[in-house]
Amino acid sequence: MIIVTRPGVTEDELDEIRERVESLGLRTHVSKGENRQIIGCIGDEERLSSLPLLGLRGVEAVHPVMRPYKLASREFSANLTRIPLADHTLGGSSTVVIAGPCSVEGEGMALETAGTVQSAGASAFRGGAFKPRTSPYSFQGLEEEGLEILARVRRVTGLPVITEVMDTRHVEAVAGHVDVLQVGARNMQNFALLREVGRVHRPVLLKRGMSATVKDLLLAAEYVMQQGNMQVILCERGIRTFERATRNTFDVGAIPVLKEESHLPVVADPSHAAGRRALVPPLAFAAVAAGADGLMVEVHPRPEEALSDGEQSLDFAQFRALMRDLVPFAAAAGRPVATTANPSRQ
Amino acid sequence: MIIVTRPGVTEDELDEIRERVESLGLRTHVSKGENRQIIGCIGDEERLSSLPLLGLRGVEAVHPVMRPYKLASREFSANLTRIPLADHTLGGSSTVVIAGPCSVEGEGMALETAGTVQSAGASAFRGGAFKPRTSPYSFQGLEEEGLEILARVRRVTGLPVITEVMDTRHVEAVAGHVDVLQVGARNMQNFALLREVGRVHRPVLLKRGMSATVKDLLLAAEYVMQQGNMQVILCERGIRTFERATRNTFDVGAIPVLKEESHLPVVADPSHAAGRRALVPPLAFAAVAAGADGLMVEVHPRPEEALSDGEQSLDFAQFRALMRDLVPFAAAAGRPVATTANPSRQ
Amino acid sequence: MIIVTRPGVTEDELDEIRERVESLGLRTHVSKGENRQIIGCIGDEERLSSLPLLGLRGVEAVHPVMRPYKLASREFSANLTRIPLADHTLGGSSTVVIAGPCSVEGEGMALETAGTVQSAGASAFRGGAFKPRTSPYSFQGLEEEGLEILARVRRVTGLPVITEVMDTRHVEAVAGHVDVLQVGARNMQNFALLREVGRVHRPVLLKRGMSATVKDLLLAAEYVMQQGNMQVILCERGIRTFERATRNTFDVGAIPVLKEESHLPVVADPSHAAGRRALVPPLAFAAVAAGADGLMVEVHPRPEEALSDGEQSLDFAQFRALMRDLVPFAAAAGRPVATTANPSRQ
Amino acid sequence: MIIVTRPGVTEDELDEIRERVESLGLRTHVSKGENRQIIGCIGDEERLSSLPLLGLRGVEAVHPVMRPYKLASREFSANLTRIPLADHTLGGSSTVVIAGPCSVEGEGMALETAGTVQSAGASAFRGGAFKPRTSPYSFQGLEEEGLEILARVRRVTGLPVITEVMDTRHVEAVAGHVDVLQVGARNMQNFALLREVGRVHRPVLLKRGMSATVKDLLLAAEYVMQQGNMQVILCERGIRTFERATRNTFDVGAIPVLKEESHLPVVADPSHAAGRRALVPPLAFAAVAAGADGLMVEVHPRPEEALSDGEQSLDFAQFRALMRDLVPFAAAAGRPVATTANPSRQ
Repeated sequence: MIIVTRPGVTEDELDEIRERVESLGLRTHVSKGENRQIIGCIGDEERLSSLPLLGLRGVEAVHPVMRPYKLASREFSANLTRIPLADHTLGGSSTVVIAGPCSVEGEGMALETAGTVQSAGASAFRGGAFKPRTSPYSFQGLEEEGLEILARVRRVTGLPVITEVMDTRHVEAVAGHVDVLQVGARNMQNFALLREVGRVHRPVLLKRGMSATVKDLLLAAEYVMQQGNMQVILCERGIRTFERATRNTFDVGAIPVLKEESHLPVVADPSHAAGRRALVPPLAFAAVAAGADGLMVEVHPRPEEALSDGEQSLDFAQFRALMRDLVPFAAAAGRPVATTANPSRQ
Repeated sequence: MIIVTRPGVTEDELDEIRERVESLGLRTHVSKGENRQIIGCIGDEERLSSLPLLGLRGVEAVHPVMRPYKLASREFSANLTRIPLADHTLGGSSTVVIAGPCSVEGEGMALETAGTVQSAGASAFRGGAFKPRTSPYSFQGLEEEGLEILARVRRVTGLPVITEVMDTRHVEAVAGHVDVLQVGARNMQNFALLREVGRVHRPVLLKRGMSATVKDLLLAAEYVMQQGNMQVILCERGIRTFERATRNTFDVGAIPVLKEESHLPVVADPSHAAGRRALVPPLAFAAVAAGADGLMVEVHPRPEEALSDGEQSLDFAQFRALMRDLVPFAAAAGRPVATTANPSRQ
Repeated sequence: MIIVTRPGVTEDELDEIRERVESLGLRTHVSKGENRQIIGCIGDEERLSSLPLLGLRGVEAVHPVMRPYKLASREFSANLTRIPLADHTLGGSSTVVIAGPCSVEGEGMALETAGTVQSAGASAFRGGAFKPRTSPYSFQGLEEEGLEILARVRRVTGLPVITEVMDTRHVEAVAGHVDVLQVGARNMQNFALLREVGRVHRPVLLKRGMSATVKDLLLAAEYVMQQGNMQVILCERGIRTFERATRNTFDVGAIPVLKEESHLPVVADPSHAAGRRALVPPLAFAAVAAGADGLMVEVHPRPEEALSDGEQSLDFAQFRALMRDLVPFAAAAGRPVATTANPSRQ
Repeated sequence: MIIVTRPGVTEDELDEIRERVESLGLRTHVSKGENRQIIGCIGDEERLSSLPLLGLRGVEAVHPVMRPYKLASREFSANLTRIPLADHTLGGSSTVVIAGPCSVEGEGMALETAGTVQSAGASAFRGGAFKPRTSPYSFQGLEEEGLEILARVRRVTGLPVITEVMDTRHVEAVAGHVDVLQVGARNMQNFALLREVGRVHRPVLLKRGMSATVKDLLLAAEYVMQQGNMQVILCERGIRTFERATRNTFDVGAIPVLKEESHLPVVADPSHAAGRRALVPPLAFAAVAAGADGLMVEVHPRPEEALSDGEQSLDFAQFRALMRDLVPFAAAAGRPVATTANPSRQ
């Protein structure tokens, strides 16, 4: 931590600042400038987090030196985290595609979609059982029945399955039915939920909140990891800005920043960022070109009849075209599209 | 709902759009423009919410006509919602001030603060037992012990008490100890929590999320109200923008907009918006000038030792000065500061 | 300037950084941390502005210590800048109201409006001759003819007149006709224009750009002042955020921040922030409550016929009501509304 | 234009709205809803632009039906605009790379950089002579001398040259020295400048403003085109959001949206979006993957000595690597990198 004093700080004020810092076990080192003093605080910066330094008389600015996240940072782990998803690995040398409908609307549509995305090259299946909807009057998901259907999709296709969990009380049940737990954008700072998914033995896909900085996202991952679950997948899905031409503003630059800052794998959700299907392929290609480890794409057998997110869901033909066109981009990025090792399962 | 077609829409496409809308029980009415057609959909707009209209061939734009929230809207209730807080009423003819520390750090400091803010004119006490902190390494609150302390503050001072609830599993316990449940900005779209607080018999203070529009905030209120709890207090606490000179950007304009759109009372939290104590009074005065029904202000006996939000907490002298200077602004707004009816309690 | 090195910086890298800084005439002072080094740079920070410090090997972060603006800062001038506007002073002990139509549409409407706002208590008249319109198909102003009308309003009413200048080639002509030159939000970083208005002997009202931080606004003022014109008025008029319920998000918190940081007077433009007339009064009151020195309000004899900004213009009765209701807020702020010293002029 | 009335609009109010609209030569068509009326306005929507519809009694909402831009829209031109740049064409079947230093700092460095980027495959040279700097204390460019150097680079290398113009008074001189005029992000709504560059016979590269929507950018292009200059190149360079991990947030989704909406070519500036050189390649690849017609990249012989934007400038080796790695992405996008037709010129 670096503390910059106000111009004309008194010796007494300076002493008080140093005493407060040193009382927490850190050392201080003062550089005297022409007007202001610079106080370097050496030692465990975390201990200062409870001290309202900016509120002390004589303090003008405070600059952290260390990253506020530890377990999620590159400094913590020299090796990239790799997350096995059945035959494939997220965070490794291939591009992994997760696909499926926004909501599980029934067993038939779920199995039909899973079979199709699997044969088109997807490595995992997504589908919502509990749906976070902005309006209470929108379809809220099939809930427990949806979980049963997901478990069945998993058995029938062999595809790993991912679904969102929204309530601390459901974590155990969801973890009993699926392979990966998703924490949605609206719950990225639901710290009770983060702690709860940190206690299960399932990878967690953590979506970036609409107003979350990269740092906030990594601190949310830290909440999960601090409970012992190191299998966190970060997901860029667009942030909220003044621009409304797209549903969200896809922050493609966050992908290389996250890869620099963290050892955790990064996937992109072009569907939510785009908000309409014509924009899904360009955003998907951009994400892979920028270094994403994988994609999560919404696919529906008949998007015009979807109970949620129909505008941004690809139909089967569009998804097959996406997978075909993705191949050279993934190759250019040095991370070819993962393909199903055991096609006989289909 | 108004549907605008693409230029050159075919008769078949037009028929399909109309059929889809009419199959849901609405009527359609077409205005033929020079290039595009305008389709007015007459009837219960809510039924269209599941239809991905923008995904239909031939559709260029869709404009809702009705508000997506109902129970929270002015059209639903001609009368303003008034929420009794012991001797005072939030949403009535006076300005109600809620004050107290960010976190309850112990019984002594809680009682000391409550007594002081009460004698300075506050009508309710706030204090956090469960704290949502961006970093898992920050102080997380005294939890159950904090609730016990709050209950004791309530008994000793007679002040109504408000505290945040973060987990669906805690709703019942929190409701058993305090008068008003707060849902924090980070949980504004934690729909599981919204539904749960909608089922208790306690007013809910709902803070606007950092990236929530006014519409999103009212839809979050709708989630609570739809479960039967109509006692919702809306709270403007700043939104996240590109500006970092203040912790958040206090959206003072949202206050009159919320008052226009909704019958629910609106309070402002200048402390979180400001992020530092020097800015708390001007934001508090601005909020009242813009029509807020009340304020929620962070106060701490020794802000320089606070375990959270010390930078933005007022000390006792500063809070007394705020209350004194607030008087003419509240009078100018036609809503004088509520003062304790029964000072003998102090 | 404080430079923080990367963990594991080498001695050679450290030496290179220090040499580069010292070659510009500053001294360096190193605090050795556990992983990183902190280099305090002592001396004229401005000289470092051309050095791409973040691009040097071994540098992780750079924190400026001094404000990047000088002439505009509180440190430069202990006295608040006061700008005389005929009988009144902006930046002094009273609240100054500037009012008039968005565009000057003709001599009759200009004189009618000026007379009305003057008798209602406005201290200056605003009116656009050159209009910056988002669409080239919108009304662009009466241009030179508008300037002539403004000069006539000035002669007839005695009111100081303010108008926008958009082109470096017009600065001299505009300065010949009016009392205060306005630089609009869209030109806040039109540096050629800033320099040009810095060379005339007229106060400059500088509107904050839609995506300008407080720091950017003060640096724009610095451009004007650096040319010798110290008479700059800062204007908060709303910033662009994700929220569309108001035309812009009125950043009321910027007002006290600007007053802390700078000696320049601050006015608020509630009309552009609001975007519709019902919101103008609450934002005006909020601005004054937060410490604004003045207001600039759009008024039109028949807003429903206005050629620009009709939605947000007050009619005469609404403006009179605003001025009446403003009185107690301005008094509460300790800065009563300036009233015309010489009513016989009316 | 579609007008939605308030609930309970009176017949008189409805008549007044219709009369106002019809008096401008449009027809109206009313759909009666259960509470509100929907008025479709048929005819030349542009004529309504001066009418403050939202200010009329009885009007609740107004929805435009047509695009506010015409010349820039896809509906105006079935053919994509192609802009010849010496041997190559921007907006055609290849990816065009423009490269060079932020500022022209001298003839030697300009020629050295131009030769290098040309041999690495760039099709045009960029370099600033007039620099828009946030601080008046930063290097402002070599101005006229810079223009002379650019003209010399052009003669020596045969590369087309692009530079920014900031002042209406300089447009003619700049157009006399270079091939393409750039309007910077800070001047995107400097309408006087837009009109002036609309009158010269040179292509204009128009950078998106930091808070400009896609619509605003297209309206700015419309200003240029309305003066007769149809050779406009749109440039995405990042927008300002709450995220500070990158200098700006690169809005990669704007690229396919602009390609859908307009026939104008779209280039991306990854350097300004990124703000640091390590992020330039991933953003460049993402832009091309999303459909950009070209890239504009900052390159400097010795970035650590650059007078501006050193942090985000690539050195020669980094630029060569970028060009090499770009090849498969451009091929995947179906738009191979343009290569110099006549290498003997080098």
